[in-house]
Amino acid sequence: MRADGRTPDQLRSITITRGWSKQAEGSALIEFGNTRVLCTASLTPGVPRWLKGEGKGWVTAEYAMLPRATNTRNDRESVKGKLGGRTHEISRLIGRSLRSIIDTKALGENTIVLDCDVLQADGGTRTAAITGAYVALADAVAWARDNKLIARNANPLTDSVAAISVGIIDGVPMLDLPYVEDVRAETDMNVVVTGSGKFVEVQGTAEGAPFDRAELDALLDLALQGTAELAEIQRRTLGGE
Amino acid sequence: MRADGRTPDQLRSITITRGWSKQAEGSALIEFGNTRVLCTASLTPGVPRWLKGEGKGWVTAEYAMLPRATNTRNDRESVKGKLGGRTHEISRLIGRSLRSIIDTKALGENTIVLDCDVLQADGGTRTAAITGAYVALADAVAWARDNKLIARNANPLTDSVAAISVGIIDGVPMLDLPYVEDVRAETDMNVVVTGSGKFVEVQGTAEGAPFDRAELDALLDLALQGTAELAEIQRRTLGGE
Amino acid sequence: MRADGRTPDQLRSITITRGWSKQAEGSALIEFGNTRVLCTASLTPGVPRWLKGEGKGWVTAEYAMLPRATNTRNDRESVKGKLGGRTHEISRLIGRSLRSIIDTKALGENTIVLDCDVLQADGGTRTAAITGAYVALADAVAWARDNKLIARNANPLTDSVAAISVGIIDGVPMLDLPYVEDVRAETDMNVVVTGSGKFVEVQGTAEGAPFDRAELDALLDLALQGTAELAEIQRRTLGGE
Amino acid sequence: MRADGRTPDQLRSITITRGWSKQAEGSALIEFGNTRVLCTASLTPGVPRWLKGEGKGWVTAEYAMLPRATNTRNDRESVKGKLGGRTHEISRLIGRSLRSIIDTKALGENTIVLDCDVLQADGGTRTAAITGAYVALADAVAWARDNKLIARNANPLTDSVAAISVGIIDGVPMLDLPYVEDVRAETDMNVVVTGSGKFVEVQGTAEGAPFDRAELDALLDLALQGTAELAEIQRRTLGGE
Amino acid sequence: MRADGRTPDQLRSITITRGWSKQAEGSALIEFGNTRVLCTASLTPGVPRWLKGEGKGWVTAEYAMLPRATNTRNDRESVKGKLGGRTHEISRLIGRSLRSIIDTKALGENTIVLDCDVLQADGGTRTAAITGAYVALADAVAWARDNKLIARNANPLTDSVAAISVGIIDGVPMLDLPYVEDVRAETDMNVVVTGSGKFVEVQGTAEGAPFDRAELDALLDLALQGTAELAEIQRRTLGGE
Amino acid sequence: MRADGRTPDQLRSITITRGWSKQAEGSALIEFGNTRVLCTASLTPGVPRWLKGEGKGWVTAEYAMLPRATNTRNDRESVKGKLGGRTHEISRLIGRSLRSIIDTKALGENTIVLDCDVLQADGGTRTAAITGAYVALADAVAWARDNKLIARNANPLTDSVAAISVGIIDGVPMLDLPYVEDVRAETDMNVVVTGSGKFVEVQGTAEGAPFDRAELDALLDLALQGTAELAEIQRRTLGGE
Repeated sequence: MRADGRTPDQLRSITITRGWSKQAEGSALIEFGNTRVLCTASLTPGVPRWLKGEGKGWVTAEYAMLPRATNTRNDRESVKGKLGGRTHEISRLIGRSLRSIIDTKALGENTIVLDCDVLQADGGTRTAAITGAYVALADAVAWARDNKLIARNANPLTDSVAAISVGIIDGVPMLDLPYVEDVRAETDMNVVVTGSGKFVEVQGTAEGAPFDRAELDALLDLALQGTAELAEIQRRTLGGE
Repeated sequence: MRADGRTPDQLRSITITRGWSKQAEGSALIEFGNTRVLCTASLTPGVPRWLKGEGKGWVTAEYAMLPRATNTRNDRESVKGKLGGRTHEISRLIGRSLRSIIDTKALGENTIVLDCDVLQADGGTRTAAITGAYVALADAVAWARDNKLIARNANPLTDSVAAISVGIIDGVPMLDLPYVEDVRAETDMNVVVTGSGKFVEVQGTAEGAPFDRAELDALLDLALQGTAELAEIQRRTLGGE
Repeated sequence: MRADGRTPDQLRSITITRGWSKQAEGSALIEFGNTRVLCTASLTPGVPRWLKGEGKGWVTAEYAMLPRATNTRNDRESVKGKLGGRTHEISRLIGRSLRSIIDTKALGENTIVLDCDVLQADGGTRTAAITGAYVALADAVAWARDNKLIARNANPLTDSVAAISVGIIDGVPMLDLPYVEDVRAETDMNVVVTGSGKFVEVQGTAEGAPFDRAELDALLDLALQGTAELAEIQRRTLGGE
Repeated sequence: MRADGRTPDQLRSITITRGWSKQAEGSALIEFGNTRVLCTASLTPGVPRWLKGEGKGWVTAEYAMLPRATNTRNDRESVKGKLGGRTHEISRLIGRSLRSIIDTKALGENTIVLDCDVLQADGGTRTAAITGAYVALADAVAWARDNKLIARNANPLTDSVAAISVGIIDGVPMLDLPYVEDVRAETDMNVVVTGSGKFVEVQGTAEGAPFDRAELDALLDLALQGTAELAEIQRRTLGGE
Repeated sequence: MRADGRTPDQLRSITITRGWSKQAEGSALIEFGNTRVLCTASLTPGVPRWLKGEGKGWVTAEYAMLPRATNTRNDRESVKGKLGGRTHEISRLIGRSLRSIIDTKALGENTIVLDCDVLQADGGTRTAAITGAYVALADAVAWARDNKLIARNANPLTDSVAAISVGIIDGVPMLDLPYVEDVRAETDMNVVVTGSGKFVEVQGTAEGAPFDRAELDALLDLALQGTAELAEIQRRTLGGE
Repeated sequence: MRADGRTPDQLRSITITRGWSKQAEGSALIEFGNTRVLCTASLTPGVPRWLKGEGKGWVTAEYAMLPRATNTRNDRESVKGKLGGRTHEISRLIGRSLRSIIDTKALGENTIVLDCDVLQADGGTRTAAITGAYVALADAVAWARDNKLIARNANPLTDSVAAISVGIIDGVPMLDLPYVEDVRAETDMNVVVTGSGKFVEVQGTAEGAPFDRAELDALLDLALQGTAELAEIQRRTLGGE
């Protein structure tokens, strides 16, 4: 039994508020327990200069945390005048993850920027960000179709995508770690999986002791189960039955 | 009659969600119509080096906007590597406004940082930020008293403080301008007023044509009325009857 | 009687050396007592990209202080690698003030940059900067007419503009505060007024105690009187009789 | 058969020039085929402020590329004034990897900075950097023992560590990808493994199509084989028999 | 005969206004023809951390140009967020030049910062800056003696120092080049010389064609003559007879 | 006799490894004793915008040091986010030196960037950089001719160029100073000379005591002898007989 009463293979309570923002083409406020991330998708016609004339679109992402999202306040990166390594790393991960399910030809010469801003942090912010960004992205694509920026019959989304964290704590593989578990994990892994169950990213790190093949396998099993549940929640949120 | 159905001297719908954040010592999500600002107050023992040993506390503020708070996306200041002039200016205004009702001796050697992050923008973000920051500040002060960081009988808050925008549109003075009105205003003024009805800041700018004394007087009247209503909402939010 | 022998409603000695710079299209070294600001106006054909093709000109301003303009040395913002909030704020104020009396259509597609560099500071640097920048601007406009960059009969200047500081010290409203008075003021206001006596900017701040309507009115009266005197000095400097 | 004549499970020619630098406490010029990385270990007594008094040491790493290490010149990050996301990400990976085999208690209050500068790049620079940094680190630890900065019988190195890239190209899993293969890989994985064969980091990315569990397993097998060979080369380089 | 009527070995009109600033411990506005540089010396007790406890003082310099000092406007380095190479280079040159005639032991643990701000530029700004900075420095040293920051009988100034530019134009060596000559010079040299006629810095650059030993000798002769004249002007400015 | 056994007028052992890089159009690893600098020349068609359409090429240089090139580690300028004054100064010196022997008309609209990265530092890094950069430059020019980017019969190189440091130590003029001598030198001079024996740059600095004309002459003699030897080594390295 875990501190919050969950079993090792159980997700936290997941809530997705679709269309939270009145301004963005697509948006979702996603909650994994106390972790809250506001994801917006901004779609604009045109692509960066280096991509012009190729008939392809572009998807990119930026991740950030409000200064008091965490238990103690962090200085703003805008005030410090530079992005930290962690911010860079997570922004790149989110971008790659969402691009993995995008057909840029079908998107046409449009650019989508996914902004994932952590309003409250309690572990798993990058996995919540990826999972919520997919919902915002899907709505921005629908908006573009309604507004004739992409063709009626074009489908830029080749699949859905979701992400979850898994880790080994006191020798037990566990799913969806809140902050208190995250800091105690010997091994910590973030796994990004498509709706059809294929891997997009596997990022495992030995925080404490190096891990063996059997532990790696157990973590991957858990991650596949968790992302399948998230894919189902995404599907329902977006109106599938 | 205004586009949103209000009379010239009517505030938009005002909502304050006290304690929105589980992490900060005080917090409020404040809404002026579609404008939504998350205000957190982070209180830590100790003061900046230049203030040490004087037995006084310090209050400061930082304002920022999420990139897609507005109708089109703005680049992040953290990515650009520097703060814009507007951000600097508003952060300084919020800090001065809140310091005006703080007795730093009574606060003792504690520092409070007020973070005001605009999640959705529709005009009046700086005035919503000041009004919401006061609620977060009051709760952080109460927290500090409960946690014995300030004395039981000390009262660092000498008054409450709130702010509102006023402007002249087509010759008519109007209260609490949303974005569509703000861009059309000939004259635009932000006024910060204490709960006891005294001025803390008066910032009037001729956006279109210079204004005369009579217009200035009309705007000040309207601002005093609006901030009195906000002071009452703050009082009720904080549990006064 | 004030420390420097003035009455409460008296300006310091004001000197404007027109054409101080041999390089700029317009320039003025302005002195408000010991405050000395070098104002230059640089006029170049063309406008920023976002304004192209609209047949309008652009006026902007930058304010800075030499490191030893003040009583103790400040680090250079160029060495620190970023502009402070105060610099941003004053640069924006100067720009707005001068734009208020410019007819950008009449200016045509020309850009004027006003540089206001404080060589020696003794209070009121922003108000001296605005007052001196107007003289430099007027000369740059004349230069542009002589050099056929604007039409012979076009008049981009719709009025003149000047600024002064006022404040309440020991309960007495006073005009044009030097540094020793500025730090003691309970309330401090900078007022920008056109030659025809209309307000462009009113920026009042309670440094000590919040102020009431009567105090505000007294300060505005004083400011209107002071800026009227400055307007007359500007007129004479520019060769009016 | 691969373009350079290797079999799919064959490493490129690996050369480690131990002690390349006369200045650093430990150093190695490592070559994976045409990829050349200069790794230096700088050991200094003392630790960063946040770690003082805990009796523990600190190991960190910085990765960079010379501007013309690659086929076309890249602008210097020092000239651009900021680090790119890729640089941040790899520096962090190298640091975590080396810390995984360090007993910070045994290291005592000493700091080791590992600098990995890519002099020539042809794929696999981060894996070469980790593998070479271990050799530099081992020599810096030996130097510290000789110079009595760590106790004679203390052993801060709990294991060795090496890294290799693996990828799937045209459906075939391959070991140690040079640049021409790297850009064609559908899936790309960097794996960091200890001398005793346990995982420290597993970072797999679907560059083209998402990958399934069987593909992941094949890549992990290949990586374990390759890192075992590298561990043996490290052992011989450091004078083991 | 030169464009401005001077002979090849003649200085421009040199003016030094000692004590131009009311704020600094020492100051001079120096003019070499139309080149005008404001030099201030800021003296504060104490030294940078790395020099503490050695009983020695520190002298450093910063050089900058106002944006419209030149014929066309340059962007501010504070706005660009970084210092250019030329600014760095000249600041370092001024600092080395002034340190060459300072006895840091006699100065005691005091720091002097020399700020040289070019208000108007017409060639030779760095040489005017060095020559004027010496006057400001001498006055700051006298001030420190009067204020008992250095001992009554201590003499931190071991000599005076001045600088001049020389160049070869159309084959003729010339002294003190204004901008129009500077851009035409085949070879350009800045020479810093003590009051006793010894070299502190010799910086010669072939702008057009490389130069031979005879040309170098002719330029050095001219520079020694010019700096001797400047030393005499400095002596008279500082009250020597 | 010097610490390393050389006579005062003797160069250190000079080694030039031509074509060290497989990536650059021209490259050389140059060693002056323990000083090692990797010089690459990157040639690309086209010129910076401000030079377009003039039928001329452009040559520029960037100098940098690896963090552990020196005896103690220096922080990376990329991490600090800005270039130091020394880096700027040396980059500019290298650029000017190489441009002095380039006929930009003959080069045509091509750009050559010379990167000089110090891998190990033991005094004289800037002079080694200039000497090695010439070899890289010559090879890049040959490459451009082979690749028809410049005409078969065009010769952009008007001469060769090399540089050496000289200094006065204990009253004795000495050639090619390693670090231990450099820090003790009273006077330090870097001299850049063409293959035909003419001066390109003379940069002499009194580190200790100012120097007289006789000392200057002795240093120049030594520098001319040393650069003549370097020119001969360059000629042989490039295949001359």
